[in-house]
Amino acid sequence: MSGFVSLVGAGPGDPDLLTRRALDRLEHADVVLYDALVSPDAVAIAARAQRFCVGKRHGRRSIRQETIHRLMIGAARRGRRVVRLKCGDPFVLGRGGEEALALAAAGVPYEIVPGLSAATAAPALAGIPVTHRGLVSGFVVVSGHSEAAWRPLLDALPPGEVTVVILMGLAWRAALADALMRRGWPPSTPAAVLLNVSHPDACTWTGRLADLGAMEPGGHGEAAGTIVVGSVVALRALIRPADAPAAVEHRGDTKEAYGSR
Amino acid sequence: MSGFVSLVGAGPGDPDLLTRRALDRLEHADVVLYDALVSPDAVAIAARAQRFCVGKRHGRRSIRQETIHRLMIGAARRGRRVVRLKCGDPFVLGRGGEEALALAAAGVPYEIVPGLSAATAAPALAGIPVTHRGLVSGFVVVSGHSEAAWRPLLDALPPGEVTVVILMGLAWRAALADALMRRGWPPSTPAAVLLNVSHPDACTWTGRLADLGAMEPGGHGEAAGTIVVGSVVALRALIRPADAPAAVEHRGDTKEAYGSR
Repeated sequence: MSGFVSLVGAGPGDPDLLTRRALDRLEHADVVLYDALVSPDAVAIAARAQRFCVGKRHGRRSIRQETIHRLMIGAARRGRRVVRLKCGDPFVLGRGGEEALALAAAGVPYEIVPGLSAATAAPALAGIPVTHRGLVSGFVVVSGHSEAAWRPLLDALPPGEVTVVILMGLAWRAALADALMRRGWPPSTPAAVLLNVSHPDACTWTGRLADLGAMEPGGHGEAAGTIVVGSVVALRALIRPADAPAAVEHRGDTKEAYGSR
Repeated sequence: MSGFVSLVGAGPGDPDLLTRRALDRLEHADVVLYDALVSPDAVAIAARAQRFCVGKRHGRRSIRQETIHRLMIGAARRGRRVVRLKCGDPFVLGRGGEEALALAAAGVPYEIVPGLSAATAAPALAGIPVTHRGLVSGFVVVSGHSEAAWRPLLDALPPGEVTVVILMGLAWRAALADALMRRGWPPSTPAAVLLNVSHPDACTWTGRLADLGAMEPGGHGEAAGTIVVGSVVALRALIRPADAPAAVEHRGDTKEAYGSR
């Protein structure tokens, strides 16, 4: 049997937000290489597979990107069905392009199984539409991982014309807010920080752009989290009227907040 | 029994790209109100539901947005489990925010079930990563529905610093390309048009930004289709080496192109 690699997006966390195709690939996998932040419940779906965490874990050195490539290619060449399970969508700030290039260069057959990126799923689950007729007709998604990644784009954006979504930027929140305000975004612009979206300990902060820098993520990690800036954030108070935004609001379950059956 | 509305994203087309939560809501629905462009195979999953197309269909007047709100609210108040099935993601250029506001104002319990937006899923399925380390660390998604929607944002974007994704903009492709080139984007910037993504008749055009205006979508509609502009489009030739980009390339099956088992 010929080996095969599926680069699969695991979505924001809750296995209920996996696609049917992702579920199928996990159920039939021989080998799963998963990121550390992927939900254990999603990994567990691959019941009959050998499963390896290849992402950065607290207190351990992360595996080099080249090593991940080597593991995927090696397993596929041994005839295995390999699932490379990545947080969110493989091609949205996830190095999926690098992994696809490595597989293509090695001549290993593979596919992309897109997943729900936190860039859109996190705001949606929090009741924030990233676009809204009469407010904004576009949004920007940018990596907050390093200043070099976000500054050139954020410095160019016309204030108020677009919703800004920043992934992996929590550690830079003060500098990000400062950059936008210097560019002309009003300090009163609504902002949100969405943590552990779709997980049982999901948590949402909303406030003004001017207060974003001083926001405290509490026990949540500094690296994860989705920042949203723009007028649409204010819709959350209307879209979820039973749950008025406060300083930091801890919720037991995202689904419950929407009155799920 | 108390009624309930699920605003569900159907993803780009193929029912395999529905989430497990979306499948669950469809299987248990009493009433489904679906957009015209949603795949019939996705609608058919709601086997026991009353199903109504509420989107614009060729040769018929489209149902007004307020009528959709009235139908959802009325069915929920009669105790029905209602699924409002929308293309892509309900909160990405989909008027989902308006529908959520209407449900909230009516006091009807509801939830958002995010779906795969064509904004990220269409490029991923075509082998185009919207971000790539060393090339771009962000992307912009904008409605191409009207000039007022796209021009203020596109006129402000720093050339080359970001991937541009335009939904529903095929009819404006010449003006969109012109606006970007006037702003300073090189005419040689790689561009792609992705039509009927994840459907059996999926089709991809790739070329230069300078040639986008003259691109012919053929039998495909003018309204649908995803436009991608930026250096990442060139990666497609490497990521899918067996399928070199040509003028217009009709493929039998997107999955096949990735060497699916």
